[in-house]
Amino acid sequence: MKDLNSLAIRVRAGRVEALDQTLLPVREVWEDGTEPVAMIALIQRLAVRGAPLIGVAAALSLAAFAEANGKEGEIRTAAAALRAARPTAVNLMNAMDRMLAVLANEGVAALSPAAEKIFFEDVELCRRMGERGAAFIRDGEGILTHCNTGGLATAGIGTALGVIRTAFEQGKKLHVFVDETRPLLQGARLTAWELTKLGIPFTLICDNMAGPVLRSGKVQRIFVGADRIAANGDVANKIGTYGLAVLARHHQVPFYVVAPSTTLDPLCPSGAAIPIEERGAEEVRAGKAPAGAPVWNPAFDFTPRALIEKIVLEDREF
Amino acid sequence: MKDLNSLAIRVRAGRVEALDQTLLPVREVWEDGTEPVAMIALIQRLAVRGAPLIGVAAALSLAAFAEANGKEGEIRTAAAALRAARPTAVNLMNAMDRMLAVLANEGVAALSPAAEKIFFEDVELCRRMGERGAAFIRDGEGILTHCNTGGLATAGIGTALGVIRTAFEQGKKLHVFVDETRPLLQGARLTAWELTKLGIPFTLICDNMAGPVLRSGKVQRIFVGADRIAANGDVANKIGTYGLAVLARHHQVPFYVVAPSTTLDPLCPSGAAIPIEERGAEEVRAGKAPAGAPVWNPAFDFTPRALIEKIVLEDREF
Repeated sequence: MKDLNSLAIRVRAGRVEALDQTLLPVREVWEDGTEPVAMIALIQRLAVRGAPLIGVAAALSLAAFAEANGKEGEIRTAAAALRAARPTAVNLMNAMDRMLAVLANEGVAALSPAAEKIFFEDVELCRRMGERGAAFIRDGEGILTHCNTGGLATAGIGTALGVIRTAFEQGKKLHVFVDETRPLLQGARLTAWELTKLGIPFTLICDNMAGPVLRSGKVQRIFVGADRIAANGDVANKIGTYGLAVLARHHQVPFYVVAPSTTLDPLCPSGAAIPIEERGAEEVRAGKAPAGAPVWNPAFDFTPRALIEKIVLEDREF
Repeated sequence: MKDLNSLAIRVRAGRVEALDQTLLPVREVWEDGTEPVAMIALIQRLAVRGAPLIGVAAALSLAAFAEANGKEGEIRTAAAALRAARPTAVNLMNAMDRMLAVLANEGVAALSPAAEKIFFEDVELCRRMGERGAAFIRDGEGILTHCNTGGLATAGIGTALGVIRTAFEQGKKLHVFVDETRPLLQGARLTAWELTKLGIPFTLICDNMAGPVLRSGKVQRIFVGADRIAANGDVANKIGTYGLAVLARHHQVPFYVVAPSTTLDPLCPSGAAIPIEERGAEEVRAGKAPAGAPVWNPAFDFTPRALIEKIVLEDREF
């Protein structure tokens, strides 16, 4: 496989390495995810996260595995395991299905070029979403975003955060409000880190502060990403997205979802049919709540199409 | 002064002691707040918190100070400093104004009985709010609450949480959903601790999970406290209350505010006129966000009367 470089995934001399996002912004540590079993562990503990990125990372890991071990049966087994690493984001499933189709049609040797193609396509998808979404942003606007949807969540500049970055690089003056995104603080840890690096002005808030921010009139638009888009346009995304969409509607602030078309799941009829991953209680307790306190910890929620102004894909919006 | 005992404030041999609520539920440490300067520090760092409790605690501290130092001028100075310890909850201001009126009308010796009276009145106000509010709760319901409004927030059983406790002790089967309440986690740390002690079944959630919980149909009513109620019925309360009220309206779940009439501020025309305390950035960053990340950290927000089903006081609801 070629050497590849992005903010959170890279290939060096045939080894696939991922930036451990659980340690950001305090430490920047790269972990080896060449073996599918290692990549699955990285994905499951959210060291590798972001719907587009986990699809790219899984494809690169599968290709590296295929290079080291040419047996088709074992490659299929590894692909199935990678595909099941997390249940909600469909990009991962789409990437694995695509790799398996390449394997079936073109053989083992075609897997590395296919993974590289997925990587570079993701970069290009981000660029195109960025251009398309930035057209909605006017000079001087305040933009609110949730979770992390930037260079850490994709192989390129990101989805929703890529739109914000593109608008900023077009010279539009912006101020970004960043939801911290409990329980794992992808907004506070990752989006704040990316925006600091990019020099884009922002204010970090707790998720429960979005209401007064929207009421203040300081936010003209909300941009978020997506983990899966059902056939009816309902969108699964990071927990908290739905509540934010309800607040947006109440304050008449337009709510945009930005995602590559690999996030579409035409076989899933509606948001209610999207499997929502539930994670462990300690992520919520965080050593602060009483030990053993009962917890509900869904990692995602779904937002009905009716609360969404536009879904921005790389080639169209609707 | 008499010895007094409650969950988070007590008087022993003339010393006023407060349970340091910043250390709960991990450690139960009582701090001396006999000196007004010490009590102010406890209130400002939220070791003593809860709108009714800070009024009671300030009155006890002022009475202890008056017992030790009979000079009227110094008592007035101490009362003014206590009154200004935090800006949003009006109970503190009402308690100090009442103590100063006693001082003016009845003299220094009347301050300790007046403080004891404020303490016992708060216990009784809680009992009456509990009875009144519990009448709205039906057997088998799910109740969502925010922040901590229980025995730790008052001298008695609490406001909103006192209502829930009263309904539970009436034999109604209940399940409580507890918002963790970022940034200081009063729900996760304090309400979860109280409910565990009381044996009331609950589920802890992050603030941003309230949307899916309300959509699920598992919650029939929401009960919260108040830090100040303006003349038009707008309610200042812990940050996150407003967003929750918007979600409640969207899901047609009735939203109740429970507070003693000492929380009313007829001189304040509306929520927009209530001073909202803004606290330090590190409470939000919490060592997780990049150092120096810009933060907005309002400790409270206000909810317009139109989103509230009922405001439950000790003697009436409206």
